[in-house]
Parts: sequence; structure tokens; C-alpha cells
Amino acid sequence: MVQRFGDRDFASNFFTTLRFEGDVLDCEVEGKIPEDIHGTFYRVGGDWLYPPKFDHDSAFSADGYISMFRFANGRVDYKGRFVRTPRFEANLAAGRQLFGIYRNRAADDPSVRGLNSTVSNTTPLVHAGRLFALKEDARPWEIDPHTLETRGEWDFHGKYSSLTFTAHPKVDPVTGELVCFGYEATGEASNDVFIYTIDKHGEVKREVRLKMPYVSELHDFAISREHIVIPVYPLVTSKEWLEAGNIHWAWDDTLPFYTAVLPRDGDAKDVRWYRGSKGAAVHTLNAVTEGNRLVLDAPVSDGNPFPFFPNKDGAPFDPQKAMSTIRRWTFDLGPNADTWHEENLFPQAPGALGRIDDRFIARPYRYAYMGYTDASRPFEPGTPYKSAFPAANCYGRFDMQTRELRTYYVGKTCALQECCFVPRSKDAPEGDGYLIGVATNFPEKRSELVILDAQRMEEVARVILPFRISDQVHGTWAPYEDLPFQMPGKS
Amino acid sequence: MVQRFGDRDFASNFFTTLRFEGDVLDCEVEGKIPEDIHGTFYRVGGDWLYPPKFDHDSAFSADGYISMFRFANGRVDYKGRFVRTPRFEANLAAGRQLFGIYRNRAADDPSVRGLNSTVSNTTPLVHAGRLFALKEDARPWEIDPHTLETRGEWDFHGKYSSLTFTAHPKVDPVTGELVCFGYEATGEASNDVFIYTIDKHGEVKREVRLKMPYVSELHDFAISREHIVIPVYPLVTSKEWLEAGNIHWAWDDTLPFYTAVLPRDGDAKDVRWYRGSKGAAVHTLNAVTEGNRLVLDAPVSDGNPFPFFPNKDGAPFDPQKAMSTIRRWTFDLGPNADTWHEENLFPQAPGALGRIDDRFIARPYRYAYMGYTDASRPFEPGTPYKSAFPAANCYGRFDMQTRELRTYYVGKTCALQECCFVPRSKDAPEGDGYLIGVATNFPEKRSELVILDAQRMEEVARVILPFRISDQVHGTWAPYEDLPFQMPGKS
Repeated sequence: MVQRFGDRDFASNFFTTLRFEGDVLDCEVEGKIPEDIHGTFYRVGGDWLYPPKFDHDSAFSADGYISMFRFANGRVDYKGRFVRTPRFEANLAAGRQLFGIYRNRAADDPSVRGLNSTVSNTTPLVHAGRLFALKEDARPWEIDPHTLETRGEWDFHGKYSSLTFTAHPKVDPVTGELVCFGYEATGEASNDVFIYTIDKHGEVKREVRLKMPYVSELHDFAISREHIVIPVYPLVTSKEWLEAGNIHWAWDDTLPFYTAVLPRDGDAKDVRWYRGSKGAAVHTLNAVTEGNRLVLDAPVSDGNPFPFFPNKDGAPFDPQKAMSTIRRWTFDLGPNADTWHEENLFPQAPGALGRIDDRFIARPYRYAYMGYTDASRPFEPGTPYKSAFPAANCYGRFDMQTRELRTYYVGKTCALQECCFVPRSKDAPEGDGYLIGVATNFPEKRSELVILDAQRMEEVARVILPFRISDQVHGTWAPYEDLPFQMPGKS
Repeated sequence: MVQRFGDRDFASNFFTTLRFEGDVLDCEVEGKIPEDIHGTFYRVGGDWLYPPKFDHDSAFSADGYISMFRFANGRVDYKGRFVRTPRFEANLAAGRQLFGIYRNRAADDPSVRGLNSTVSNTTPLVHAGRLFALKEDARPWEIDPHTLETRGEWDFHGKYSSLTFTAHPKVDPVTGELVCFGYEATGEASNDVFIYTIDKHGEVKREVRLKMPYVSELHDFAISREHIVIPVYPLVTSKEWLEAGNIHWAWDDTLPFYTAVLPRDGDAKDVRWYRGSKGAAVHTLNAVTEGNRLVLDAPVSDGNPFPFFPNKDGAPFDPQKAMSTIRRWTFDLGPNADTWHEENLFPQAPGALGRIDDRFIARPYRYAYMGYTDASRPFEPGTPYKSAFPAANCYGRFDMQTRELRTYYVGKTCALQECCFVPRSKDAPEGDGYLIGVATNFPEKRSELVILDAQRMEEVARVILPFRISDQVHGTWAPYEDLPFQMPGKS
């Protein structure tokens, strides 16, 4: 017997439960879809097939769900499917949640011991003509890019040794190389990190093995043309902590905030460790190496960013310290330096999920795009938004040169998910194109894909779905050339 | 560019536009699904992929949509798909509605001349291991019973000559024979009716060709063990009427209401024509021949039942005359009789879509089941129900022997669609089982399948979908034995 999710108020939550798979052909549109948008917007997030075993579990335990908006000739189709992980299939067969709390196998049902427990709910990746759903606790799960059917675990022809794979790999836009890593690479609570370079054909070319100063969540990283940059913040775990039945992560305020800097063509011995002030950089925007300086831009918080991961010292969750703002870190690559310089670029615009024009990854760039919360514009009273995270009501274009912030406000009944930049054409100048992202329209109980002119930051069209879709964590734009397709019904 | 349907207020309508295809695995349930329900509830209705060309078009022009609730082991899965008719595919390719008003090709786009224009939106049929979606203007469209993918037009191995096939064929529960017919059998506005008997293996065994007194909507009929009974009410058409660009049907109050009675093993020469008072029997419940008498039970109206089909004399639509109540007609099979006797059995319970325990088709029976409108229980003010038809808020069990009416009331924010009887087991006594049917829950913008104990007429469980589904016209219950399946996720 399935439990009514509504009784636990998942309906207005981050990772609300929709529990269905759907297709919309030739979606309804307000305005006009620009005909030069030709490709697929893939989104990955979580959707509980069954409720978690524990009320205090993290939303990050929700089952992976992949969806796409496919654009061609001014039309758009929508499709959404669960990622059919072994965990999903086991739960479905049993008719209930068999798995314990977030990334801790201690409370799993005995029937699923030894089964891969990833939910594959974080990021879509397109590389070398393949589509994957990613979650940092496992290898990529390959997905059919057209049907969104799950093909299964992918190990790069047996050449990928880490048991895990980051949810934030970086594709070098010039070489087509995929730079990625796995942490807890040799098993739960191990401090092994394996870093890989995979060529544009999907062949593993390099592996570097690092030992980390402590076992922590290495959620994102950045690459410049020359370097790999990994923020190491103290959201930590250990075998003892897990054996005690705890949720995977806890915040340890006594540990330093490190950043590892490593040449892309270097070995483990070449890694340099920098230390910064307390905080976390869960996500990054971009990195650039210029002479003797490395610059990393990222949304950074001053403390534990996640309310569902406890503070080890017992301190209550501090929403102010959890809030991220876009900061610029400068690393001196000369001898002896072991700290970085931090500048808070846009303190007025708190947000956590930022993106750039992906054609400028690892290269000098000008614009970042991020959903942020303008607290002066509250929700319409009664809007049923309930989440561990403040709702984003604006998309900003952050000019990293002039520090100008250009804003799109979605209105007082909607919340915005992570945005994605779509270049007008392959060779368009940086920032010339569209910004797309899903809004949850609460009173209408539906989702709407907003499409902005990314220069004017004004809405040009809105795709109206007839239902609400599950919340995205991350998305990616796949130009038509990268994954060609046929639109259903097109003659 | 797709037009926003919401602007035309399809959202609260009969045949509301949902425009999507969906799957729900292991649906959420209130209460407990009885474990002895093992089989599939198929539903067919309409869902506009694109808005109609004409605002005054009939909802019956909406694209066919087939859905199923699949029950096993106390669980239920839901699936819904458009019927991929040639018309659907042509519209989808063009990105707009290419077809004119209801069953009139005059206003079709020239690009679709000659293309079959059925929308296949009326009734699911399970026979000889196959599933079909039916619409009376075309032959059956075969559907994969598990994926609900459309296989295409079915002509019974080339042995079915009529161009059309009724949406209300009858399966004899003892012989397994399918008795059916097509009207306008040789082309639009023809008065040819071809009647078929198809054996339990799906082989055409008999064809009888009749000429009707006028060309009219022959929507339903009934069979007894010995007879075929066809009500012929004056919702008429003609070549001239269609060439003038009109909607297919108009009500002609000057014409008589006939009923044709024909022995199941007879020929065209054996047909007898009876005449009754003004009215229409769009649907039937059952027929029984006992000695020299034939009894037909049916919901019957006193006039034109459809507001979107005009009165030929220009009279305004009369909702009172459109309302059906369950009546019993008795036909004297002796020589000379040419009228029938009518008795109004349940005048207090107006409704149009009645069903029986299908194991008693053509046999003496006791119970009918029908959604009806209890006008003393209005909607909660503000409920956005908008339809040409009054909303059913009750399911009734009509005891045709004692005249007792036992009622289930769904509450003041829901509307009920046609119900379906599910026997507790193959050999359970008549009426021992469940009554199932979909309720639209307007404030929650979702659909719910209610499951009643069919004897007590009390709710035992409710399947909660996370979205609204398109309105059903008719449904059918396929016991597991008739179409075996594997439930997704069951080990």
C-alpha cells in the first residue's frame, strides 16, 4: 500500500512528488519560440517514487528523474522519465522505500545489501554523443537521449576505476575533453580522489590519484586552460559516523577550508593546497589562469549551506551563513603562497546555482547567469512554497567585468529553478542568445519554461506545461549538432 | 504556434485539454485496493491536441485518448496515450487543426482530403485477445493492450465490409460472439446499415444489410439471446446538409422514433419496425426476450439530447427534453404490433451513461449502474465545471426488479464519469463485485478513480492521480484472463 505523499506535504516542497512519467507534444506556448533555438534542454532532479524512510532525510535521496525540452522550428516537445536505477527497480518491485537515510546503507532493508544505491538525481551530461544522468556517489548512468530510457551504469569501456563520478564534470569547449573526478573513489568514507581526462571520443586518457586532507563533499570544481581547482569545504563523513546511522554529511567548523590546485597535465605530486576563511563553495562558475594568477569565480557561503546536514558542534542551522553570493577568489601561483584572496562581487544577489555560456568554460569570460532571491519581492501571501532553500524569484545576468547586474523578475507566484544559457548560434559572441529555465507556477499547479533574451534579460516566450514537473537540480543544453533528433510529428 | 487552450476555457470543460501522455507506476491510494481486482480498466475519451477550427464544434471532434488502470495484487498502474489516428498524425505534423467541423469534410484543409478523419474517441473494446478504440464513423483502431501504442485500422482479415463500426458492439457473454454494425456503412449520409456477427476468435460469420428509413445517428443498440434491437431516433443528416457546411447531425422533430427488431439469426427481410413517442435512446442497458415479449431497458430522453446538434425547426435547445431517465420498453413480438410500451422506472435519477454486469448481457438481469445528477446537491460555489451536460454527482445501483435505487454521492467538488462493473470473480453472483469510475476533483485539479463495493455502494478505495486526465466517454473492464499482463516492477 502506497502512502499518501500529500499527508507529508511533499506537494509544495523542493523535490515535490509527482510520481509520473509524461510526454507533451508540441507544447502550448505564450509568445513565440525563437526558430534559432534548435536542440535539447536536459534536466535532472529528484522525484520520490516512495516516501523516504526517515522524515529528516535529505531531498537529495529522491529518485533521479530526467526530462527534456526539445526545440526545433519554433516548436518544443517535453518528455520526463524516472532514471531506472537498480534502487528504483527494487523499490518499485517491493512497493515501498527499501533504502535508509542519505548515503548511509546501515538502515537499508537486508534485501538490497550490495545493490548499487545511487539515485542518479543531480546532473545531465552530454559527451561524445552519449547522455548520462549523474550523481556523485556512483558512476554515470547512461540514458537514451531520445526516449530517456535508462541504459545503465557506464564505466568508459572499463577504463574508469573510481567507484564514483562527480555531478559537475567539465567539458573543455575547445578540445572537447571531459575533465572529471570521483571522490570516496575506493569506497564509502575513503579519502581517495581519482581525477580523469577523457577525450572527445569518450576514451579515458589520464588518471591522477589524490589523497584528501579529510573526507568531504567535493560537489563541484573548475578548470582553467591550465589548471584543475577543487574547493574542499568541511562537510565531512567517516566510517564511524556512518556506522552510527547518521545522514552522510555533517559540518565540522573546526576544519580548514582548502582549495586544491593542480595542473591539468600534472601528477599528484604537483597539487598545491591553499587555505581560506570558513565557508563552502558547493558550486563554481568558471576559472581562468592568467600568468601567475588563477582566478576562480563561485557562489560561496560563510558556513554550512544545507539545513538537513547537521553541524557537528550542535549549533543550530544558520540561514544567513548558508546563503551564497558570487565571489572571486584569486590564487597566487608563485612560490610560498598558501591562501587566496576573496572579493564579494554581488552581495545583493544571494543564489547558489550559477551558470555561464559553456563555450567559455576555462577561458576568459564576462557573463555569469544565476537565479537569486530578491527578498524585497516576497511571494503572494498563501503561495505554498516550502523548501530548505529560499526561492529564487529572479534570474540575473552578472557582468563580471563591469559588475552590472541585469535582472529578470518572474512574478510573485512563481519560483525559478537553475537557468541555462543557449547561444544564438555556434559562433555567436559570448552572451548572445537565450536564458532558459523552469518556473513553478504555484496557483496554477504547473510548470512553465521561461525563455529570455539573455542580453536584454526580457522574456520572449513561455512554454506552458499542463502539470507541475519535478524540481531540477541541474540542466544542460545540447545543441542539435551534438545529439541530432527528429521531432515527433514533423514531416 | 500553438494557441493557448486556456484562453478558450477548455480547462474546465467536458473533454478538457490535457494534451499529454503519461504513466503512473504504483499509484497512490486512499484506502486499500481489494486484492481480488485483477485486470485492466480501459477508458476512451477525447483530448484536443489542437483546438477545433470552429468554436461551435462538438466535443465529439476531440482527438481519441485511451487510458488504463491496471490492477494486480492490491496495486494499480495508470497509463494514458493519444490514439495515433492518421488525423492526429497529420495535425501534429502541421502543428494545427486541419479538420473542419464534426464529421463534415467540407471545411477540411485541402492537404487532408481523402485521409481517414476518425478521431477514435468513444469506446474501448476487448475481443478475441485484441484491444480496439472505437468511433462510429470508422472501423476499429487496434491498440497494443500493454503499451497503448496505436497499431492501426482493423478490418477483421478483410471480411468486414462496412466503412464504419458502432461504438457499442455487444459481446455475448456465453458464446463470446461479437454482435456489431456500421451505419452510413457505404459512405457519408448513406442509409445503409451492415450488421455483423463475429465469433469468439474474431472471424466474421454473418453479415446482414439493412436500409434505414432515414439517415440518423445509430449510436447504440442491444441484443437479447434471440434478437437485435436498434433504436432509430431523428438525429439526422444528408448530403445536402453536409455540403452546406453544417455539423453532421441535426434534430428533426417531424420524423418518427423507430425501433428495429431483428432475429439474431435472421435476414434483412425479417426486420420489424416499431414506432414510439418522440425522444431518443442514445444508449441502452440490456435487452431480454421472453416468449412473445422483448424488453429493452435504456436511458431515454424526450427530445434532442445534444446542445451542439441544432434543432432543424430552429427551436432553442431544451435541457429538460435532453435529460434521460431509465425506461423500460416492451415490444409485443406477436403479429400486427407496431408500437412499444414505455415505463419510466427511475424518474428521480437523470443520467445518460448506464452499465450492467456484462456477464448478463442479453440475459435476464437485475442490476443497472449509472452516474446521475442529484440536483439537490449542487457543486461547491466556484467549482469550475463547464459542460454541455449536467455533471453526475452520484453513482446509482438501480434494482430493476424491486425499483430500489441505492446511491453513492461523490461530494460537492467532484464530477463522476461513466462507471464500470467489476465482478468479484468470474463466477460471482450478479452484482457481487466493485463499481469503478473516475471522478474529476476540481479544486485539486486532479482525477481520482473511486472504487465502490457494488452491493453496499460504499467507497472502499480511491486511486489518486497527480494530474487531471481527459474525460472518458466509455470504459470497459478486461479481466486478467482476457488480456494477461505483467505489472511493471513486480518481481
